[in-house]
Amino acid sequence: MESLYRRIVVAVDPDDEVGLYTLKQLAERFCERGSHLKLGLPFVLEYGVRGVREMFSVCGDHGSMVILDLKMADIGAIMRMIASKFRGAASAVIAHAFVGYNSGLRDLKEALDEWGVKLVLVASMSHPGSREVLDHCMERIFEVIDRTRPWGVVAPATRPTVVASVKARFPYVRILSPGVGAQGAKPGDAICSGADYEIVGRYITKSPEPVKALDRVVEELKRRCGG
Amino acid sequence: MESLYRRIVVAVDPDDEVGLYTLKQLAERFCERGSHLKLGLPFVLEYGVRGVREMFSVCGDHGSMVILDLKMADIGAIMRMIASKFRGAASAVIAHAFVGYNSGLRDLKEALDEWGVKLVLVASMSHPGSREVLDHCMERIFEVIDRTRPWGVVAPATRPTVVASVKARFPYVRILSPGVGAQGAKPGDAICSGADYEIVGRYITKSPEPVKALDRVVEELKRRCGG
Repeated sequence: MESLYRRIVVAVDPDDEVGLYTLKQLAERFCERGSHLKLGLPFVLEYGVRGVREMFSVCGDHGSMVILDLKMADIGAIMRMIASKFRGAASAVIAHAFVGYNSGLRDLKEALDEWGVKLVLVASMSHPGSREVLDHCMERIFEVIDRTRPWGVVAPATRPTVVASVKARFPYVRILSPGVGAQGAKPGDAICSGADYEIVGRYITKSPEPVKALDRVVEELKRRCGG
Repeated sequence: MESLYRRIVVAVDPDDEVGLYTLKQLAERFCERGSHLKLGLPFVLEYGVRGVREMFSVCGDHGSMVILDLKMADIGAIMRMIASKFRGAASAVIAHAFVGYNSGLRDLKEALDEWGVKLVLVASMSHPGSREVLDHCMERIFEVIDRTRPWGVVAPATRPTVVASVKARFPYVRILSPGVGAQGAKPGDAICSGADYEIVGRYITKSPEPVKALDRVVEELKRRCGG
């Protein structure tokens, strides 16, 4: 079942009650099982670039990724400046495809390639608001993804048809799907539709027994999509 | 001419060579003339939330704004969590309109209203890549702006027709226009087209004499759009 742990990315938010030291211990238990971490801007604001680097040091030893989820959406020069702070502290960074390629994602991609960091682009999001604009611009967003050739794409587990259409269009790309657990999708919803990774946050991290919650997610995944 | 200084927002990036103390001194000189500051994620990563708070303390005394430009583009719960870190440290925060209203900007707007912080939404960007997706989704982005009713909207000085169309559609909203200086627009390009604020970065901050560069921008503004 080891391989199915490799399909889970645990989204870790800062936690005032436990602090970074305890979060690192928890992260190590996720990563020694083979799972990966996603750290967002709230984590960075609380623990700094150094906090991200410490998590990376813990999880890198287990061959696990630390995915930096800043959902960058700026001009290329600024995204590159931001990403440069995390060299040696993250395996992958997430940016929005909708900012476009020219003087945008091209600059970021070139820098990340040079630094050996993976790029993940957001195609669509897991909340209802993404139906208001993003979903209507999907074809143009796909064109940007096509030009940028990222390592991975984010597509929401809450909408398996979006996952399937990303998979059909970009068979070479890894699909990362948020929305499993607290946001309503069930373990397997995305992976059964072709996603490579499911991102699970509060369902695991806010559980009284987070490691057991991760085990439950993997068992459910195995039951639904096979192992 | 004091009032024209009030129309300029200086985008301050971190500067390895001078450090926060010198940046604060410089910021005070911009703000005592009446201009405002825009601080982005590179600044936050370098100097932390505390650095933003110190700039706010310096400029707030002069009635100037500190606009926090994280270009947030996440689900509502995360944007609210991020913004909460800057309560009492910023006058306004910038988020992307394209993330949508439901479970997105609504959550952020409600929190900011409660905290007395202004919301600024990005309608379009100043780089060529924004023609690839954003410009084609303008009508739906305008609908999100209409529902969210932000204090301000970002529209690029490099494309005065976009500024004019935002102005026509949202006469009640303040328009903030980046792209003046290093990115090619000239002082006045946006304000003459109806913008309320022009955002100037490197042209001022990388000048050997930044305060004189600000003075030159304001003189040029006066010459072109009247004072």
